[in-house]
Amino acid sequence: MTLDDLTAPTSGTRRPEHAALAAALDARRPGHSLPAPLYTDPELHQLELDLLWGRQWIFVGTSADVPEPGDYITVDLGRASVLILRDDDEQVRAFHNVCRHRGARLVEDRGSVGNIVCGYHRWTYATDGRLVHAPQLGPGIDTSCLSLLSVHLREIGGLLFCCLAADPPADIDDVAEVLTPYLAPHRLAGAKVAAQIDLVEDGNWKLTMENNRECYHCDGHPDLLNTFFQTWGLEDHQIPDRLRAAHQRFLLADAELAQRCAALGLPYPVVEDLVERPFGFRVERSPLDQAGESFSLDGSRLVHRLLGDVDSFAMGRLGLHVQPNAWFHVLGDHAVTFAVFPRGVDQTLVRTTWLVDADAREGVDYDVDELTAVWRHTNEEDAAFVARAQRGVSDPAYVPGPYTETERQVDSFVTWFTTRMREEMAR
Amino acid sequence: MTLDDLTAPTSGTRRPEHAALAAALDARRPGHSLPAPLYTDPELHQLELDLLWGRQWIFVGTSADVPEPGDYITVDLGRASVLILRDDDEQVRAFHNVCRHRGARLVEDRGSVGNIVCGYHRWTYATDGRLVHAPQLGPGIDTSCLSLLSVHLREIGGLLFCCLAADPPADIDDVAEVLTPYLAPHRLAGAKVAAQIDLVEDGNWKLTMENNRECYHCDGHPDLLNTFFQTWGLEDHQIPDRLRAAHQRFLLADAELAQRCAALGLPYPVVEDLVERPFGFRVERSPLDQAGESFSLDGSRLVHRLLGDVDSFAMGRLGLHVQPNAWFHVLGDHAVTFAVFPRGVDQTLVRTTWLVDADAREGVDYDVDELTAVWRHTNEEDAAFVARAQRGVSDPAYVPGPYTETERQVDSFVTWFTTRMREEMAR
Amino acid sequence: MTLDDLTAPTSGTRRPEHAALAAALDARRPGHSLPAPLYTDPELHQLELDLLWGRQWIFVGTSADVPEPGDYITVDLGRASVLILRDDDEQVRAFHNVCRHRGARLVEDRGSVGNIVCGYHRWTYATDGRLVHAPQLGPGIDTSCLSLLSVHLREIGGLLFCCLAADPPADIDDVAEVLTPYLAPHRLAGAKVAAQIDLVEDGNWKLTMENNRECYHCDGHPDLLNTFFQTWGLEDHQIPDRLRAAHQRFLLADAELAQRCAALGLPYPVVEDLVERPFGFRVERSPLDQAGESFSLDGSRLVHRLLGDVDSFAMGRLGLHVQPNAWFHVLGDHAVTFAVFPRGVDQTLVRTTWLVDADAREGVDYDVDELTAVWRHTNEEDAAFVARAQRGVSDPAYVPGPYTETERQVDSFVTWFTTRMREEMAR
Repeated sequence: MTLDDLTAPTSGTRRPEHAALAAALDARRPGHSLPAPLYTDPELHQLELDLLWGRQWIFVGTSADVPEPGDYITVDLGRASVLILRDDDEQVRAFHNVCRHRGARLVEDRGSVGNIVCGYHRWTYATDGRLVHAPQLGPGIDTSCLSLLSVHLREIGGLLFCCLAADPPADIDDVAEVLTPYLAPHRLAGAKVAAQIDLVEDGNWKLTMENNRECYHCDGHPDLLNTFFQTWGLEDHQIPDRLRAAHQRFLLADAELAQRCAALGLPYPVVEDLVERPFGFRVERSPLDQAGESFSLDGSRLVHRLLGDVDSFAMGRLGLHVQPNAWFHVLGDHAVTFAVFPRGVDQTLVRTTWLVDADAREGVDYDVDELTAVWRHTNEEDAAFVARAQRGVSDPAYVPGPYTETERQVDSFVTWFTTRMREEMAR
Repeated sequence: MTLDDLTAPTSGTRRPEHAALAAALDARRPGHSLPAPLYTDPELHQLELDLLWGRQWIFVGTSADVPEPGDYITVDLGRASVLILRDDDEQVRAFHNVCRHRGARLVEDRGSVGNIVCGYHRWTYATDGRLVHAPQLGPGIDTSCLSLLSVHLREIGGLLFCCLAADPPADIDDVAEVLTPYLAPHRLAGAKVAAQIDLVEDGNWKLTMENNRECYHCDGHPDLLNTFFQTWGLEDHQIPDRLRAAHQRFLLADAELAQRCAALGLPYPVVEDLVERPFGFRVERSPLDQAGESFSLDGSRLVHRLLGDVDSFAMGRLGLHVQPNAWFHVLGDHAVTFAVFPRGVDQTLVRTTWLVDADAREGVDYDVDELTAVWRHTNEEDAAFVARAQRGVSDPAYVPGPYTETERQVDSFVTWFTTRMREEMAR
Repeated sequence: MTLDDLTAPTSGTRRPEHAALAAALDARRPGHSLPAPLYTDPELHQLELDLLWGRQWIFVGTSADVPEPGDYITVDLGRASVLILRDDDEQVRAFHNVCRHRGARLVEDRGSVGNIVCGYHRWTYATDGRLVHAPQLGPGIDTSCLSLLSVHLREIGGLLFCCLAADPPADIDDVAEVLTPYLAPHRLAGAKVAAQIDLVEDGNWKLTMENNRECYHCDGHPDLLNTFFQTWGLEDHQIPDRLRAAHQRFLLADAELAQRCAALGLPYPVVEDLVERPFGFRVERSPLDQAGESFSLDGSRLVHRLLGDVDSFAMGRLGLHVQPNAWFHVLGDHAVTFAVFPRGVDQTLVRTTWLVDADAREGVDYDVDELTAVWRHTNEEDAAFVARAQRGVSDPAYVPGPYTETERQVDSFVTWFTTRMREEMAR
């Protein structure tokens, strides 16, 4: 049973703020940042939650978040709380985290359960969602109509995606087919969570995403630049003089990595489909600078145990961008996943998770502080950038400006966003 | 002079949110919890403040809160602050706590005064509300038109009720007649306040009230269950097996208490009129478990001095529920009053007051920590339940569910609420 | 380039809240405080930001805030951040503090720069606003269209006023002509900032201004009353008996000060034009009590160095009120400026700045704690009054009351406000 079985669809209803949304979308000039209301208006934000976050596939976590039967996490998508749980048959399922009695929030945060027991009046649901115990329920009530409401869930190479809609976009099948050969060798489904950090950024979620889609601001990331090539996103003819030497190193390292991947049978070419399809994505492999192994200050490994079916730590970086809300770096020794969740029109949660081989031992094979240092610092720097951007676009004097050549993927993200919003408004 | 003398009535004006309110009331299914907007929509909450909190009799405190002439308390009813004060003739009066000059809040919290002096420009009012001093007021101004605006106030057995409307519901007279014989022997008007605790719950006020009206969740109150019979609210045939033994103890204690009350001439039968009348209420006497005297862990007295005209500590519990916002437990040794005040659509103040005999000596006849322990713990547990419920009903996946047989009084409260709201909308 | 060059004007557009604003303005009774919505309604507040704060000249700081080329401060006017900077030619300029790229807030707080460099992607603007560096900008983009958007700025006797409108009120020229002879001798443009304190008051900005425009509440300012004549604002026949003695002292001191000013060629008469003109103002000279030199507890100097071209510390007080948002006290030894900025419908920033001679040495010629003590205390007392007033006018029982004879300037402020709002709505 899904929520749509019980409630009337909202897509057919025109709300007055739809006109304001249409006006804002129409006002967007190609190649320019979005009109202010799309970053600042609470009513348009609510429409985004309904029309975009309520309809697209959203990255919510990894298989490693729920390793054992009964393990669960909860994720907030707007005002909706989703309960993601591995059932007794090892299948990962998702439910609305709302009791069917008087609506209490069932469980909080994360944990492990036998059955799902509401903490208020102890209504009890099996891990498949069936209501199995509800004391003193009147005689005329059919408990089979009181199962938990389910949410669509898909796993791709250990990454979990939810969709709140009754009819999720079907193109996830095509994307899964493309991504699986890239992800499979890294065996993320069998990894374990070494660390997870939630950071709240004081900005609209799209500013968080835009910030991720360019390295134009990377001078603000001194730690990251030890291993991340700042020329990322630039064509050869766009390389500024000061980055020429780095670009030469990149070209050599790139050729070498391509060769190693070919030897291992790993696909190497960039595949990008960021604008046209609902499940917009881009996948690429690219080398890291210096020792080329990991996000450390000198590029050497942070975990002394390989992750997945690779035979070397120098695997560079498998980079994956998905729309609307995530990005990933998969390395030879660990992986980092980033999930973005709106907390309001001007506040966004960024959940960063570090995955290592399931048998890697904390304190022996890796140190959590060292493992997380570069991205902890980078995330905090990004949070400051996003807050600065939010303050600016909230200013009545903000006028959308032009993206530069290095911000091509920002433009792709923004264009994907406006395209999807128009499509959903038209439904 | 009342506020209505100065301002146009609002009852005739239709606001656009009235349609949303009517839709939400119509959507309520009998026997089910309320539709989400009635717990979460700030505009509907404002309508409730106007149409229900602004028109019904609201429990605001006890005579013991203002024992001496000049003593006052203040109570917030929505955005309205009400000043409740014992005047020089020992009569308790209520005024809007707003200076007639530039509108400053006159006094804060509680205290004792000779005259009521505004803390801004020192305009001074007698305890009957007359403006008696306003320096440099221009010659053409009639100070008799600048008295404090009065608020209706009624006392029933030491309990104080206010009504902000110009024409309060008249049925308070009938209710007073019913309740007085129950309350009078306990002489609450002559009691003193031993302790008062304000607790803010993160939920809509109706969730606070619903939570009070059932013991279906009482497994979450381990302290309270030492003396409160968990079978409260259940018919004989509804008693689950695990509570059979407790129910046997209850039946014996109930018979014994009925006998003792008969001997003392105290009325014993339940009187319930929770739905039909504006001043919905239920009064009952029932025994406590174990020693049967008080809300302690073993049921023995917490105050070593009888409260009121009773000759035994084993008086069980006189339980009183009033709509919309209060409940009471009156025991042989003390009484506890609970007043509920909205602080916003999703925040509610619960003010708990412990009353003891005026001559009981703190530290000798009672210890405040011991006296308050069980209800302090119980209130905190309830606050967690209410917060959990609010998070759930705010979820787009919330669908009102069915009340069980033990939640009959919850249904009565909710039905009273929808009935009153419809009536007031129709005025 | 100004914001108006890029965006359509908003003055022609009628918003639905205009009707509510018109109704509230119409409901104001002469000689009475404002109707509640003008103190409490967030939508009317937004209209005030647009129609009044966006159109009038606003006091933003002093020349001493930006003493050297490259020095800047930022000021928030509603959601607009204004960057005020002394350029390389020593001219003070103002810009919208928003990057023309993706809109990031350019700089924060205050500081000193060579060029204005955005902290996000390092777009760089000269101190005249021209975009001088924007790496990897595409070839087709005309950087001359990407200058910072300028804001009108005027300096009068060292006081800086901004106007966000394209066509600021022209009467500032007339006012400058009147004020310059009063201000010039004090040479504020050459002073230095000895201290600056921001205080957030929990009330609408108009309550902050109203509170400043009367001394009816001055019994609440024990420190200030040592030197400030409480009879301020009263006509002779209005002096209450308890202030007769103080008034006698005032009359003597006033005559003496008038004589001293005449000898120095300083203009002495009150000039008041608080209601009729957009740039409403009042300027006056008046004596201080006791030693008559400064805002100390005994009236003696707080800075042992004269400020400006005066030959005595006993200069009394040059008092200047300007509408909508500032007041000033200029003494023989120092000056204090007060700027009021809304932070929301019910929150207001008061920025107080103490100016002393540029060559006065901290710790030698003055002690910051001593210098600021009286107004620090007075401001905190005023913040409590304003918060009390805001709580009161937010009460549904608030009814605008009559101003007394000592509140004439409060009435002038309120009348100026309603007059300006009507004018701007009619444009």
